[in-house]
Amino acid sequence: MRISELSRRSGVPVATIKYYLREDLLPKGAAVSTTQADYSEAHLQRLRLVRALVEVAEVPLARIRAVLAAVDNPDLDLHTVLGTAIFAMSATPESHPGDPAWDRAAEQTDALLAELDWRVTPDSPARVQLTRALAAMQALGRPATPEMLRGYASAAHQAAELDVACIDPEAPREEALLHAISLSALMEQSLSALRRLAQEDVSAARFGAAPARTGKGPGAR
Amino acid sequence: MRISELSRRSGVPVATIKYYLREDLLPKGAAVSTTQADYSEAHLQRLRLVRALVEVAEVPLARIRAVLAAVDNPDLDLHTVLGTAIFAMSATPESHPGDPAWDRAAEQTDALLAELDWRVTPDSPARVQLTRALAAMQALGRPATPEMLRGYASAAHQAAELDVACIDPEAPREEALLHAISLSALMEQSLSALRRLAQEDVSAARFGAAPARTGKGPGAR
Repeated sequence: MRISELSRRSGVPVATIKYYLREDLLPKGAAVSTTQADYSEAHLQRLRLVRALVEVAEVPLARIRAVLAAVDNPDLDLHTVLGTAIFAMSATPESHPGDPAWDRAAEQTDALLAELDWRVTPDSPARVQLTRALAAMQALGRPATPEMLRGYASAAHQAAELDVACIDPEAPREEALLHAISLSALMEQSLSALRRLAQEDVSAARFGAAPARTGKGPGAR
Repeated sequence: MRISELSRRSGVPVATIKYYLREDLLPKGAAVSTTQADYSEAHLQRLRLVRALVEVAEVPLARIRAVLAAVDNPDLDLHTVLGTAIFAMSATPESHPGDPAWDRAAEQTDALLAELDWRVTPDSPARVQLTRALAAMQALGRPATPEMLRGYASAAHQAAELDVACIDPEAPREEALLHAISLSALMEQSLSALRRLAQEDVSAARFGAAPARTGKGPGAR
C-alpha cells in the first residue's frame, strides 16, 4: 500500500509516519519509484505498535528503539525479550544508598521480594522504582507496612497473571511480542485508571456519599 | 528554623526551596529581618509533600497548586478533597467520539462500571483514561475481554482499599490529606513497580527460567 493508505488505515498522519521512518522506528517501504514506496501489513502492524508506545505508553523514542530491537532479535527467547521490553519500558531511577530513608526502603524491598520468592533479576529497574516510592513514604514519616506491601503485591501479581495470560507463545513471534509489549503498557494505564475509580468508590463508601466533584474548590471546576 | 535548616531537614536544596516559594507552592516564612525568614514544622511538612508530588508523583506544578488549594480549603469534606486531589493528579486525555475504536472502548468502560456498580462521578478523568487505553487495544486488534477487565478491576479495588485504609479521618485534617495525596501517588508507583516485578516472575514461570537480562540484545546491556 502507499503511505496515504498506511496513514488512513493506521490513523497516523503522513507527516508523523515520515518522522517515524526518519527515526528508524518504522522500516522503509519497498521503493516503487524515486518518490513512492510500497508498505505491507507488517508496516501497518509496526506503525500501530510505535504509535501505541509513543502515544499511550509514553515511552521515549530511544527506549522504543531498544524495545523494537529486542522484538526483531531472533536470538532472544520469549521470556528474555519480554524482560528486555519491560526493562526498556521503565527508566531506572537514581539510587541513594547511605540516605537513611533510602536504606530502610531498600531493606523493605529486599525483605518483601525474599518473602514472596518471586523470580526477579537483581538489577530489575522496577526494584529501584519500588525502593524509590518506599523511600519517599519513609521520608514522609508514613512508611509502608509489611501487611500493606503484601496486599499490593497480591493485587499486582493478580494483574500480572492477566497480563501474561494475554501472550500467545504459539502465535508468530513478532506478533506475540508486539502485542505483549503494547498491551503491557496499555494494561498499566487501564489498571491505574481502574485504581483511581476504585479509590473514588471506596472513599465514597468510607467518608460519605457526596460525589467527589460536588464540592467547592478546584475539584468543582 | 532558617531556610538552611529547612533544607537540611527536608533534603531539598535551598535553591529549590526558593523556587517553590516563588511559585507559591510553599508559604513564605515569618520575616525575622529583611534578608531572613523563620520556617515552622508546617513548612517542613508542606515542603516534603511538594517534593514528593514533584519528584515522585511527577505532578505538574499547575496541578500541584490545585491539590494544595483543596488541602487548604476548610469548606471541603474529606471525600470531596480526596476526589479533588485524585482528579487534580490525573490529566483528562482527549476524547475521540465518532472514532469506532474509541466508541467501542467507551461502551466497554460504561458496561464495566455499570456491572461493578462503583460510585464514580461521570466526569472522572480516570474514566476517560480507561477508555483511552481500551481504545488503543481496540486499534491494535486485541480488545480487552470482559473477563480480563473484571480481573483488573478486582485487583484495582483490592489496591484502592489499601490506599484508603491508610487515611486516618481522625487525624488533623491537613495531615490526613497531605498523607493521602502523596501516599496515593507513591502507592501508584509501588503498585506499578510490583506489577512489573510480578510480570517477570509469571513470565519466568510460563516461558522459561532464564533471568530476563541474560539474553543478548538491548536487555543485556
